[in-house]
Amino acid sequence: MKPRVYLDWNATTPLRAEARAAMAAAMDVFGNPSSVHAEGRAARALVERARGQVAQALGAEGADVVFTSGATEAAALALAGRGLLSAGVEHEAVLAWCDCSLVADSQGRVAVADPGRTALQLANSETGVMQDLPAGLAVSDLTQAFGKVAFAFNWLGCDMGLVSAHKLGGPKGIGALVLRRGLDFVPQLRGGGQEMGRRAGTENLIGIAGFGAAAEAAARDLADGVWDKVAELRNILELALSAQANETIFVGNGATRLPNTLYLVTPGWKGETQVMQMDLAGFAVSAGSACSSGKLRASRTLRAMGFDDGLAACGLRVSIGPQTTQDQVLRFAEAWGAQYRKARARV
Amino acid sequence: MKPRVYLDWNATTPLRAEARAAMAAAMDVFGNPSSVHAEGRAARALVERARGQVAQALGAEGADVVFTSGATEAAALALAGRGLLSAGVEHEAVLAWCDCSLVADSQGRVAVADPGRTALQLANSETGVMQDLPAGLAVSDLTQAFGKVAFAFNWLGCDMGLVSAHKLGGPKGIGALVLRRGLDFVPQLRGGGQEMGRRAGTENLIGIAGFGAAAEAAARDLADGVWDKVAELRNILELALSAQANETIFVGNGATRLPNTLYLVTPGWKGETQVMQMDLAGFAVSAGSACSSGKLRASRTLRAMGFDDGLAACGLRVSIGPQTTQDQVLRFAEAWGAQYRKARARV
Repeated sequence: MKPRVYLDWNATTPLRAEARAAMAAAMDVFGNPSSVHAEGRAARALVERARGQVAQALGAEGADVVFTSGATEAAALALAGRGLLSAGVEHEAVLAWCDCSLVADSQGRVAVADPGRTALQLANSETGVMQDLPAGLAVSDLTQAFGKVAFAFNWLGCDMGLVSAHKLGGPKGIGALVLRRGLDFVPQLRGGGQEMGRRAGTENLIGIAGFGAAAEAAARDLADGVWDKVAELRNILELALSAQANETIFVGNGATRLPNTLYLVTPGWKGETQVMQMDLAGFAVSAGSACSSGKLRASRTLRAMGFDDGLAACGLRVSIGPQTTQDQVLRFAEAWGAQYRKARARV
Repeated sequence: MKPRVYLDWNATTPLRAEARAAMAAAMDVFGNPSSVHAEGRAARALVERARGQVAQALGAEGADVVFTSGATEAAALALAGRGLLSAGVEHEAVLAWCDCSLVADSQGRVAVADPGRTALQLANSETGVMQDLPAGLAVSDLTQAFGKVAFAFNWLGCDMGLVSAHKLGGPKGIGALVLRRGLDFVPQLRGGGQEMGRRAGTENLIGIAGFGAAAEAAARDLADGVWDKVAELRNILELALSAQANETIFVGNGATRLPNTLYLVTPGWKGETQVMQMDLAGFAVSAGSACSSGKLRASRTLRAMGFDDGLAACGLRVSIGPQTTQDQVLRFAEAWGAQYRKARARV
């Protein structure tokens, strides 16, 4: 049996060796970071070291990094009760708290009229399409962009950013809200002084250590040009897939995209069907964001871009990473093409 | 230099070997539990296995276990917006959402008139005092009791319970809300279908695996009588300390207490001072719950029990665990007595 090929890096990533080592080391640091004794202070030092690593990787030196249980919690902290504007291309964790009245163009780009009242993602999880963030933006979901493309929070001109560890080789269940110093939000977890009173609850020490190490390693990889090679591979894959099926639409390829993401719509061939067929063939891909993938419905991103419900149900996301090889993407294109021809033959 | 002695098990516990092994194994399971492909299903299986382990350890088979980032989040889910009654002996993560109008007696026990509108802990984190939970109780904070004393959620007669992994040898940053099937609560994290739509956000896979393994191991230890031996050691420590200082009050020792907890008030000798002196002497103890220990203030639990502010600032918690030895507790008693005599000499 051939080893499986994982092409769903936007859903989640394998744990980096650096994160694994940091987490193993943190398992021996068992104090409560809120305790004043030596064991507590050792745990506190780990948390603050990781906070510095995340801030530096984000280009957010001097800003506040508040650790959360993930980007979903960061979104709730940044957005709940504010009624900010957003477009349908945002992740559902953002849309849940927003007035979804902004529109996207056919490439997925969103025009913002009132940045101070708007949430706009830096990159889309499905299409990989990147936005030009306007100055004075209230909130940006940086989750998919962090670690894949170079940016500095301090230069984005937005007030608050959302990030997650598991999209850049860290563990799941840990993320952060980053915010310009001087800003604040309404705490949702209360009853303890952690995170300067902004997020009560004993810190996820092992997860935080893993996040810090992963963020540092991700920033180093990015500076080393690792994602330029990923982009080359993504382009090879795009060419190989386009050679298999004439009518397939490569969504957002007129816009700037993340280097690793490919989103294709093949009319009449449901994304969920493709995912299951490719899974049986040994490839892990996705029909949309993992968070909604159990729901078997049309892509909200595609609908926001003007695709009708029929086409919006036919999206397939292929997202690769630094461990992906040329052999893997070419094998995928071949296997996908074979399924495509079978699907066509059945029509 | 002598190795340090950790006597602050109610603040947090060393990671169990079983949890460490489960977490190391989970590091290789990198799929997103929401993904439908094989990698996602493997991750989902880990989450559900751990959910079963936690439910079984809690005696909550058939009830719902919703994983959260800890007991603080579970408290917010169970309590926010409900205005339940509670007493000042509750943890601040509970008090933050409650009408704190119930009173405790001098042993820390709380009389409940309206169980369906009340939150009452099973055991206090500072004194270890246990409550008789009335039937029909709305919410119980089970965090300190879980793993240390035998109970079954299904037989407690309460609607919802709060638990945390790191008090029983699991990792920090993961916990659960357990609730009778058929009940519900208002989700606070939104935008994903995880936890049956009740708690959005990619699951803390590694932490959840560690929680499940720790809960299972804790239940086995409890059944094996491990905590009976801990209670004997605690009683030895109590005797040894009482021999050092006549006027020291052993709080709650007229009530049923957790087997591992000792809370002493020595008039005129501040708890925070004791913690620092004992830390320098090589012992980790606490002046109160770790979550508020940075605040240098009087114990809320002691004040709720009728102690005045002066006495309530003089509490010291010594909480031991299965790894604590008789040699350690006797050395602690001796070192504490020496500091006590120095403190007295300065008066």
